[in-house]
Formats: sequence, C-alpha cells, structure tokens
Amino acid sequence: MSKGLPKREDDYSQWYNELVKRADLAENSGVRGCMVIKPYGYSIWEKMQGQLDQMFKDTGHSNAYFPLFIPKSFLSKEASHVEGFAKECAVVTHYRLKNSEDNKGVIVDPEAKLEEELIVRPTSEAVIWSTYRNWIQSYRDLPLKVNQWANVVRWEMRTRLFLRTAEFLWQEGHTAHATREEAEEETVQMMNIYAQFAEDYMAMPVVKGLKTETERFAGALETYCIEALMQDGKALQAGTSHFLGQNFAKAFDVKFASKDGGLDYVWGTSWGVSTRLMGALVMAHSDNNGLVLPPKLAPIQVVIVPIFRSEEELQAIEEKAHEIMDQLNPLGISVKFDHRDTHKPGWKFAEYELKGVPVRIALGPRDLANNTIEVARRDTLTKEMMKLDEVDVSKAIPALLDEIQANIYKKAKDYRADNTRKVNDWDEFKKVLEEKGGFISAHWDGTAETEEKIKDLTKATIRCIPLDQVKEEGACVLTGKPSKGRVLFAKAY
Amino acid sequence: MSKGLPKREDDYSQWYNELVKRADLAENSGVRGCMVIKPYGYSIWEKMQGQLDQMFKDTGHSNAYFPLFIPKSFLSKEASHVEGFAKECAVVTHYRLKNSEDNKGVIVDPEAKLEEELIVRPTSEAVIWSTYRNWIQSYRDLPLKVNQWANVVRWEMRTRLFLRTAEFLWQEGHTAHATREEAEEETVQMMNIYAQFAEDYMAMPVVKGLKTETERFAGALETYCIEALMQDGKALQAGTSHFLGQNFAKAFDVKFASKDGGLDYVWGTSWGVSTRLMGALVMAHSDNNGLVLPPKLAPIQVVIVPIFRSEEELQAIEEKAHEIMDQLNPLGISVKFDHRDTHKPGWKFAEYELKGVPVRIALGPRDLANNTIEVARRDTLTKEMMKLDEVDVSKAIPALLDEIQANIYKKAKDYRADNTRKVNDWDEFKKVLEEKGGFISAHWDGTAETEEKIKDLTKATIRCIPLDQVKEEGACVLTGKPSKGRVLFAKAY
Repeated sequence: MSKGLPKREDDYSQWYNELVKRADLAENSGVRGCMVIKPYGYSIWEKMQGQLDQMFKDTGHSNAYFPLFIPKSFLSKEASHVEGFAKECAVVTHYRLKNSEDNKGVIVDPEAKLEEELIVRPTSEAVIWSTYRNWIQSYRDLPLKVNQWANVVRWEMRTRLFLRTAEFLWQEGHTAHATREEAEEETVQMMNIYAQFAEDYMAMPVVKGLKTETERFAGALETYCIEALMQDGKALQAGTSHFLGQNFAKAFDVKFASKDGGLDYVWGTSWGVSTRLMGALVMAHSDNNGLVLPPKLAPIQVVIVPIFRSEEELQAIEEKAHEIMDQLNPLGISVKFDHRDTHKPGWKFAEYELKGVPVRIALGPRDLANNTIEVARRDTLTKEMMKLDEVDVSKAIPALLDEIQANIYKKAKDYRADNTRKVNDWDEFKKVLEEKGGFISAHWDGTAETEEKIKDLTKATIRCIPLDQVKEEGACVLTGKPSKGRVLFAKAY
Repeated sequence: MSKGLPKREDDYSQWYNELVKRADLAENSGVRGCMVIKPYGYSIWEKMQGQLDQMFKDTGHSNAYFPLFIPKSFLSKEASHVEGFAKECAVVTHYRLKNSEDNKGVIVDPEAKLEEELIVRPTSEAVIWSTYRNWIQSYRDLPLKVNQWANVVRWEMRTRLFLRTAEFLWQEGHTAHATREEAEEETVQMMNIYAQFAEDYMAMPVVKGLKTETERFAGALETYCIEALMQDGKALQAGTSHFLGQNFAKAFDVKFASKDGGLDYVWGTSWGVSTRLMGALVMAHSDNNGLVLPPKLAPIQVVIVPIFRSEEELQAIEEKAHEIMDQLNPLGISVKFDHRDTHKPGWKFAEYELKGVPVRIALGPRDLANNTIEVARRDTLTKEMMKLDEVDVSKAIPALLDEIQANIYKKAKDYRADNTRKVNDWDEFKKVLEEKGGFISAHWDGTAETEEKIKDLTKATIRCIPLDQVKEEGACVLTGKPSKGRVLFAKAY
C-alpha cells in the first residue's frame, strides 16, 4: 500500500482526492474551482485525445476553433439553453485594469465597461450556430461535421478534481444535416464511438441509453449517454450525444436550399466528453497502491528498474535494458528505464505502482547471470520470472499488455454485473441503495414527478433508459403505476 | 488569378484579408476581435502544433494545463508584468445571469459579484509561478520544463485575422532552473527551435536576435526573437523566448534548496509562438492565385483531379488514381482524390490553387491511354507530363515535394536578401523605408530615446539586435552618436 494514501474502503472520497494529487494527475489551483492538470495527468489526457481525435477523423469530422466568449444576446436566443446555463457562468464585463488612486494596486477601470457582457463559453452551441448561419446555404454544404477541442467554464459551487471543476477541457462536436434521420444517425454513431473508446481504451464498461426529459441537455430533443459504474457503487456519466432537432437552426435562422428547391431548417447534433473521463479512469480501476492504468492509455507502459550496488553493475544492466527497449520500442511500446541513483529500487517500485504503470521489469546482477527478468503486473500485483532463453520478449510483453488490458476490463465488468440489481419493491429499492449502491434496474411510471420524488427521497437519479431495454409490463417501483420497461437508477457523480 | 481575390500588388492588406477568408482559413466572428478558425485553417495549425510539440518533447518538455483565470492579485505581484498587460485584458466580475424584471431577457445578477476579479489569461506566468512555488523545493525538482497549449486573450482595439486578435491560440513554455547559465541556455535553445521550425517547416527564413529593452517582454531580463520579412516589406515577429532571471521566482517566492545546502531563488524562462504564425505563413509565400503552402505543412500535399465525361471514364481513372495513392500513402504523403461530379475540373484547379495544395495531378482518358499524368506545381504554376513507364511515382512525387519545399524557402530568402539594406544616412533611411520597405541594417546609439524618436518619425522599430551582429564602429543613423554595431529596423506587423 502506498505510504500515506488513504484506504479506498475507509474513505473512498478521500482516497480519490489524495490519489489524484499523489499520482501527479492534478491539483487544485489558487483560482477558485479551477484545477492544474500536472504533466503526468496531462500525458494521459493526451493519449485519450489522440485516440478520440482519430476516431472523429475516421468518421469524417474536422477540427475547428470558435471564440471563447459568447455575447449575452447570443446565449439568450435559444430559451431553454440560456435557462440551463445562465445560473453558473463567468461574465466578462470590463476590458481594462488601471492603477488605483492611491497607486497601491490595480483596479477595474470603470470607464472600460463593455457595451454587452460576454459569457465565457459553458458550451459552444450559441456561437457555433451563429457561425453556421453563414456557412450553410445549400444541401451541398451539408453535412457539416465539426469538432472543437477547447476549455469551457461552468461556475460550479462544489468542485472536485476532474469530476466537477469550474473550468474543464473537453471536445464538443457540432454537426448539421439535411434530414432528421441523418442527424439522429450521427447522434447514435457518436454515442457508439464514446462507448467503444470507454470499453476498448479505458477498459471501462458502459451502459448506452437515453436520458429522461429532466436530465436532457438544455436545448436538445434527445440526449444519449454512456454511464459507467465506479468502485464505490456510484454511477458516472462519461459522455453525452445530443439530438438537437431544429432547435438551434430555428434560434439562429440556419436554413438550406434543399435538392428539390425547398428551403428548410437544418437538423443538428452536439456531443462531448471532457477531462471528467480522467476521474472516471481513476475511479474505475485504481486500488490502495495507487493508479491502475489500462495499457492502451498508459504514458509509460513498461518501466525497467535496475537493481545495482555499483556503477559497474549498472552498466551491465543498462546494456541488457537497452536490448529489451530495442525490441519493444519499434512495436510502439513506451518503455522507461529508470537508472536514477538518487532513489532506491523499493522506492521506485512503490512510485510506479502509484503511477499505475502496467508492467514493471526488475533487472539485477543475478538476472544477468541467469538471463532472466522479473516481470511484475500492476493489475494483479503478481510477479513472474521470465527466462529469456525460452521466451521472446518482443512477443511476451505485448501479449502481457493485452492480457492486462483485458483483465482490467473484465474486472470492471464483473464488478458492474455484481452490482446491478433488479428491484421491484420500494423498501428494497431504498435498502439496496443504502447498503449496496450500484445500478438498480427498476420500473418507473415515466413521469418527471416520480423521478423527482425518488431523487428527493433517496438521491438516486435515473441514469438512463438503456438502449437494450426489454419490453416488459411492470409496476413503478414508487407509485405502482404501469410501466413498460425497466430504467437504470443510481446515485451518481 | 483566383476570381475576386484582390491583387497583392494593388492592395496587400485587402489581398491578405480576402485570401484568409476565401481559402477557408479563418473569418471574423460575431464576437468583437475574436476569430473563427475554419476547418482547413485549423488543419494547418494542427500540423504546426504536431511538429512543434514533437520538438518540445524531444528536448525534454512535458505538457500540462493551468487555469484560464488569473486573480487580479496574482497578476499584480510582478510590477512590470501587470503594467504590461493591465491595459488590455478581459475582466470577469460576476458568476451568474438572471432573468430581467420584465422577463424579456437575461441580465447580470448584481448579487453574484466576485470578491476578487479574475483576469482571462493574457499569458500565464503569474498563475504558473504561483503553482511552481509548491512544485519546487530542492535542486532535485529542477529543471522543471513545462509547456501548455492554450487560448489567451489580449483586448486589442485594432484586430486582424491571425495577426492580431483579442483571443488567440498559442503554446507557452515555462521552465525553472537551478542556475542562471542553464536558464539562459534554455532561452537560446527555444529560440533556435523556433527558428528551425520557421525555416525547415514554414520555409520562412528568420533573423535571430535580441529585443531592445523597450520591446522586451513585461517582466523579462532579455527577450530573444525570430523576425521574418513579409512580401510587402514589413517585418513580423514570429516567436519570442524570454530569459526571466529571478523576477518571477522573487515575485512568487519560489526558492530551492541547492546541492550545497543553500537556499536560492530559481531562474526562469518563458517562450511562445501563436496562431500568428498562420498569418506569417500566408504572407510569406502566397500569390494572386491564392495560398502557397510548403509541402511539410500542407494538409493535402497532392490532389488528383479526374477529367471525365462519363461514369465509365471516371471508373477507369479512379482505378489509376488509387494505384497512385497506394504508392504515395505509405510514404506518409496525404493525397486527395476529388471525384465530385458537382464541380468541373477547371473549378477544381482554381480551388486547389486557392488552397495552396503543392502538387496537382490531372488524369484524363488520354493519360490512361498513354500511361501519363499531368503534374502541376503550385509554387511555380508550371506543369509537366510524367510518363509512368519511365518514372517511378513513389520516388518522383516525394522528390518534387522536397524540391517545392526548398524552392519556396529559397524564394523567400532571395526576397529577404534583396530587401535588406545597409543604410548610413538619415535621409536615405527615410527614403528606403518609404519607397522600398524591407529590413534596414543601421547603426543606433543604444538609447531608448533615439529608438522612440525614430519610431515617431518613421513608424519603423528596431526588430532586433541580430545575434550575428558584426562588431563595427559607426555613427547612429539619427543622432550620429557612436555605435558598435548595426541593428535591424523595419515597419512591422
């Protein structure tokens, strides 16, 4: 167990906060609610970005960049949109500071007041749709499939590293289409891409579903989402994809000349994932020794730690280490050889466990003599001796990384299976939620009132109406009114 | 000449503005002074980012992310720094909107006033050095070499796409070192990396030099820069690297325990390039037909345009086109096959010239019969017939791209050589500046007063004291006072 890291089972929340800081992922800044993403944390985010960006490009999207600021009047054009974001936004009102009269500091210059206030974007629909108005005239300009990597600001009062911060990094896709069907297909496609990324790269199983009307994005007709289960039994919304209908096209007057000579509003989608995924990654897999990173997103996949007492021993080990690196690097495996003499091997072992490096190779003089390496797995915390006379490192290590990736995924999936419960009775609902947490699959009468009441009584929300929902006659777990299928409840981040 | 594009020689400024818009690089947004970077423009920026990021990582830098907002008090800690940026900054004063009393719109909620105003970062020294204070305790924590890709805001009153915008994208490196020498080396190294990038990738020759005290970064002891010459004879500062001394360490109290047991302030650097480079790229090479992109930064390096009258002809051409693509794609060359039937070949030719695609291949039925391709170069606007029986496409096209890259660079370098003039006389100085522009290499007495006077009289500024300055006794071109070497004057963007 890593020195000083709180135990996960004692205080999950404290364990998470400390782990994020100690593993050098992120820390709170001196600016209220804003975090600093540290180099190690950022290198994981870069791996996420790289993979997602490739998936977006492979499906025909291009990146672009739109302004950070949104004039107040733009935001107000779509009624439910402004309603959703006005209550927590950063407002720029002035454009200059000046020296104070006593010359002891700087103050806001009252003469430099903006005619119209600017909102720091909480999301970019407003500024993007006001731009699309000029980009789209005819069906030939469609579909328009644009993505943006950017920072956004939502003035959250209670913040938490990665999970809920005033400023966060994300990508937001914004597409425009000639038909409703095409826009709906795009919405579903992007949810599927998010699910594929979560499962194949983050090794995190997700439930694909639809949000209820209450939980929908402000301005959308439908919100698709992926929901994951964390190790404390709470759910986390990991990505959303919105079918906007013609709402923003109407609000910003974006029409196109159709093939048959008509003039119609375009159909829109928007979809996003954020640095929140970093929090999900930590909470889905890590343990009391620190991070457990899936090999596909680990900035360092293999670390080689030399065990040496003299410079001479180190040199011999270094030669062997480079042999191994020369076999692995060409395969695209990132290997770090930590030859620092300022830290002992035991310290390094703990450090790379804390940082979640999937595979650790220890190399000492005895290994050189026997032509062996000691290979330790981060996910299982087990070690094995590999005989290099018998095993081809360039095959064994990639296979081991694949096995670790699969094992982490399986473990998370088993956990989810063990913690997803069908519940048919209100008392049981409350009991399961209180004693065990996890996903509760239960009937709901379909009304916002019942949804709200359940939330008030238990803090559980409907995470989603799963896409694979089975049609099944039932009675609402709270009201007993008729229901046609189960939805997924949980307490959530 | 591209339809409707103003001629470069008639109105350079208008030519630039129109070209940036028509080539789909960027456009003005509905938000004062902020631009939208369009997908094609952004894809060039992504190529720039990718290359620079690799160069930073190869020299041991890691990426991280720091808050968008800087509390007013942080900014004020370094006196000359706040002085330099306070006059043009976006100030966040509130964190909520609310419905107006008449319910007809939203207004800033006066009850949601921040206790301390937040400045949208114009640069991040203040927030980064306040963080470094916690990251640096001992010499073991040094050097700390961090870079950030981010947006920044400077409230410029007169803006121009890419060259001067209220919001722009950039990277900012911030390093901390144990010794003055090491920090100075880092500063010079980063200037050299910028110069290498400008010359090898942007095909844009630059002069490396030091800024005068007047032109230095607010808070730096020395500012190194690279200066390029645009086709209208005006200079453009393309990148800067600052030696901060211990200024920010002192302002933010960043001390480290040295090897010998002492306690000392760390030495700092910062360095940055921005989307301004996009403007430089356009202005350095483009012509009346549109953009001229150096192959190394062109998102599309080769475009294949089919000449066909029937679906049958197109099919035969498509087969040949894919043969060519299969030879070029594995070499990392990006080839686009534009088989759209909505546009004629002539329209496509003009479009790809406007977009600056380095090589265009035309393929028609006669080419298929003769096993030839028509290859057109964007830089020289010349065409040649390539006989595929005699020429290996997988060698000829890469060689041609290299030749184009070299030719664009040479052309820019020749232009600069023709437009750099040694001037020893004040009347000649004014005459050259007015009639010819370009760089003027002249003696200067070393005082800020003379520098200022020359600027007032002619609008020319000292671009830099070149690093390769020759020691030479001379008389200041304005005052006649003694000087020990020439500096570089120009009107500048």
